[in-house]
Amino acid sequence: MKKNLEFLSKALSLLPEVKETLVPPKEGQFFSKPLGKGDSVTIDFGKHLVGHLQVKMGYVNSHPDAPVWIRFSFAENLKEFEENVENYQGWICSAWVQQEQLHFDLIPGEYTLPRRYSFRYVKIDILDISSKFNLVIEDVMAIALSSADDSKLKSYHNVHKELEQIDHIACHTLHDCMQKVFEDGPKRDRRLWMGDLRLQALANYETYQMNDMVKGCLYLFAALPMQNGQVGACVFLEPEPEVDDTSMFDYSLLFVAALWDYYVETKDREALEDLWETAKMQIVLAQKQVGNDGVVKDCNKLGWCFLDWSLELNKQAGAQGVLLYAMKSAVAIAKEIGKDHDAECIMKTYELYRKAAKMHFYDEEKGLFVSGDCRQISYASQVWMILGDVVDEQSGIRILHDVATQTEAIEMITPYMYHYYIEALLKCGDKTEALSVMEKYWGGMARLGADTFWELYNPNNPDESPYGGTIVNSYCHAWSCAPAYFLRKYYSEK
Amino acid sequence: MKKNLEFLSKALSLLPEVKETLVPPKEGQFFSKPLGKGDSVTIDFGKHLVGHLQVKMGYVNSHPDAPVWIRFSFAENLKEFEENVENYQGWICSAWVQQEQLHFDLIPGEYTLPRRYSFRYVKIDILDISSKFNLVIEDVMAIALSSADDSKLKSYHNVHKELEQIDHIACHTLHDCMQKVFEDGPKRDRRLWMGDLRLQALANYETYQMNDMVKGCLYLFAALPMQNGQVGACVFLEPEPEVDDTSMFDYSLLFVAALWDYYVETKDREALEDLWETAKMQIVLAQKQVGNDGVVKDCNKLGWCFLDWSLELNKQAGAQGVLLYAMKSAVAIAKEIGKDHDAECIMKTYELYRKAAKMHFYDEEKGLFVSGDCRQISYASQVWMILGDVVDEQSGIRILHDVATQTEAIEMITPYMYHYYIEALLKCGDKTEALSVMEKYWGGMARLGADTFWELYNPNNPDESPYGGTIVNSYCHAWSCAPAYFLRKYYSEK
Repeated sequence: MKKNLEFLSKALSLLPEVKETLVPPKEGQFFSKPLGKGDSVTIDFGKHLVGHLQVKMGYVNSHPDAPVWIRFSFAENLKEFEENVENYQGWICSAWVQQEQLHFDLIPGEYTLPRRYSFRYVKIDILDISSKFNLVIEDVMAIALSSADDSKLKSYHNVHKELEQIDHIACHTLHDCMQKVFEDGPKRDRRLWMGDLRLQALANYETYQMNDMVKGCLYLFAALPMQNGQVGACVFLEPEPEVDDTSMFDYSLLFVAALWDYYVETKDREALEDLWETAKMQIVLAQKQVGNDGVVKDCNKLGWCFLDWSLELNKQAGAQGVLLYAMKSAVAIAKEIGKDHDAECIMKTYELYRKAAKMHFYDEEKGLFVSGDCRQISYASQVWMILGDVVDEQSGIRILHDVATQTEAIEMITPYMYHYYIEALLKCGDKTEALSVMEKYWGGMARLGADTFWELYNPNNPDESPYGGTIVNSYCHAWSCAPAYFLRKYYSEK
Repeated sequence: MKKNLEFLSKALSLLPEVKETLVPPKEGQFFSKPLGKGDSVTIDFGKHLVGHLQVKMGYVNSHPDAPVWIRFSFAENLKEFEENVENYQGWICSAWVQQEQLHFDLIPGEYTLPRRYSFRYVKIDILDISSKFNLVIEDVMAIALSSADDSKLKSYHNVHKELEQIDHIACHTLHDCMQKVFEDGPKRDRRLWMGDLRLQALANYETYQMNDMVKGCLYLFAALPMQNGQVGACVFLEPEPEVDDTSMFDYSLLFVAALWDYYVETKDREALEDLWETAKMQIVLAQKQVGNDGVVKDCNKLGWCFLDWSLELNKQAGAQGVLLYAMKSAVAIAKEIGKDHDAECIMKTYELYRKAAKMHFYDEEKGLFVSGDCRQISYASQVWMILGDVVDEQSGIRILHDVATQTEAIEMITPYMYHYYIEALLKCGDKTEALSVMEKYWGGMARLGADTFWELYNPNNPDESPYGGTIVNSYCHAWSCAPAYFLRKYYSEK
């Protein structure tokens, strides 16, 4: 399918301006210290930020007679400084590593580094300098970038100060991912992913309320469909708006849920009507993957359905759950805009799929959902079956408690999956357990000193990287901002 | 002494505009070849140039989903590519090495690298790139910079095609060093040195005739004296015009010779009058280094007097020769502008020093000049004693022939010293030997494929670097442009 230029133009007009804020370093004790070859300075800006670095450099001794060769390393997490890009052997592109070698021909001078970085810490290593002079860092300033306006953020109150802190970190995470679009992570990828957008939008409604930005992002996805009309897993904004060639079963379907969320929040009927065809198309395309037995066909193509950052997780049951979940939103949208026939058709199919799901995936003996030919037990399968209404709340709560006792159950990896786990717990009425999970999981990152929440967090191995090195980990990742949504919506003392 | 702001403003108004010329690569066979991690492309621009690099980059396969990390290496001489900056252990600052690591966030895109380089060859190494796409170099262009105008350069004719080629290379060397000022080398140092300026100015009069540029440079030196009024060895133009804290006995004195040369060429009396006090001051200051015996005191301070790039060379006799040489120019200037008393005084002192030089430095037994307590024999000492008129032409020619038979005589290292050797040969009337030296020395570089003449050339070891690595050698160095001066002035078929 071609780009929808009307939607694209609407999308671009809705996207916000990115604002600049000057942030000084937390401490300035490095100023005026003369630096020679091999010397190094580490600067702490006191909080995570996204943006540019300004450096004012002077010198002592003779007039500079050669360029200065400097490495700038940017870290969201101090442990990134323990690794060097030259030693990184992971599979993800090491061009993401925020280490820059620059030559400065003119000293004294004020320089703004041209690229954008995501960091709290900056390390400056003098790789070489003429023996005739020493460098002096006279001033350093970060130009922080975000489209979120902190003055519009209401403070969150809770007697448990740890919860206030978790909310604060979650808001900060969202804030730093809010640029021209909702980026997944400002350090790495730096683009709009559908699954991430859905969670960011939910948190946004409770915090910064940049609802036009959500709308712009939804229109972007609708404007840039893949060949067959599917919503892509992600889109690029620059150099030109383009959809990626990656699609994922669940991410495309979450467009439907995100559209409905947006309408519930804004009552923006125009958007609902504009984007209905795109939403409906996602259901139609997903149905093509459903067999005559009403069950999503399993697939061994890597990444066909996301659910969680796990290679061993079987996605079949989860995919069925996401489809059911999206169909509920589709029915709600269709009803709202008077597409009664569509609503009826989808509802009918939904009921078929729901029953098929129960029949196919529920293991009566184990009392749990299983997935794939291997009849794999996982948190993800239970969560999505519950969110798809395959069981009632009472069974749901029993299942969620039982799966926790199964040592062979595939665990959750990402805060993204944890979001839906919390949602499932809340849906089944277990507010206490939901809160306890947030305190353990997101609280765990907070206790490790996180300024922003991470792309991945394994409480049993906090340094884990699925990429082969923490220097490419994203320590500010928007799909991790869930607590701002849940705490403010369900645990607020108003 | 303070800056002379009137001279400075005059200087800056005289300095030329640097013009841009687009230069395409010699061959474009690398275009459209998809490049992955570890791939490399070498581009030949067909000639040495100074300037910026423009690259247009596209891609094949999936949309770029990560930055591309590229190393650009710039070489004047292909052999620079055999060395890596990480392995360079020499004493000169490795920040001069023209290797740049850059990250490109947006592909496709057209980029101009921000810094200026001096190169004929560019090597592009893809240090890392996402596995989802390959880079395609769609176009490369150099933006060559020079203030010299080739359309104003008359062609040089000689039946010996090799001499035409040597002249061509010398002109090209000068051309690429002519930027805002006469730079010593556009790759390294990139600034105005007094000794180099004098030779560039001489070559300029026979070639590009940018005489206002010479004048601007002379005013710059005069505008930016050192504390005691001495002309510095070099000045910086950026970020602000400043004199370096390096001075050299001979370089300061050559200001006087360069001023007289300029007047002989232009008859610009205003400049002669303006700059006389500066010229005279150089003689006065040099005289302070002369003992009661009329001989320049030897000094063991490294670099007190340049003469040649040699640590073992004793500079005493050479320094005396340069002083005598400069005094002759000073007398000529003083006479020309009616400072008869000054002319007389300097002439009288000159005669004293000249006799003292003969008495002190001439070894009757050896028939050669010796220098220092060690009574060292060198080419440099003979050349400068001859140029200082310590012996007549007949003795001079005998001495120059004899020194060549002395195996212990300290050889010449740089084209800079060779220039004065040629001048001494011509002064003594040996045009044949002077030409033969040019054919051997500069012709030797030409036969090794030089596009421009080098900072250093040792015929017995062409890869020699006094800096500990050829990657910091300057292969386009203005003090090497002498043949353009000598060939056009003394060996022209008009």
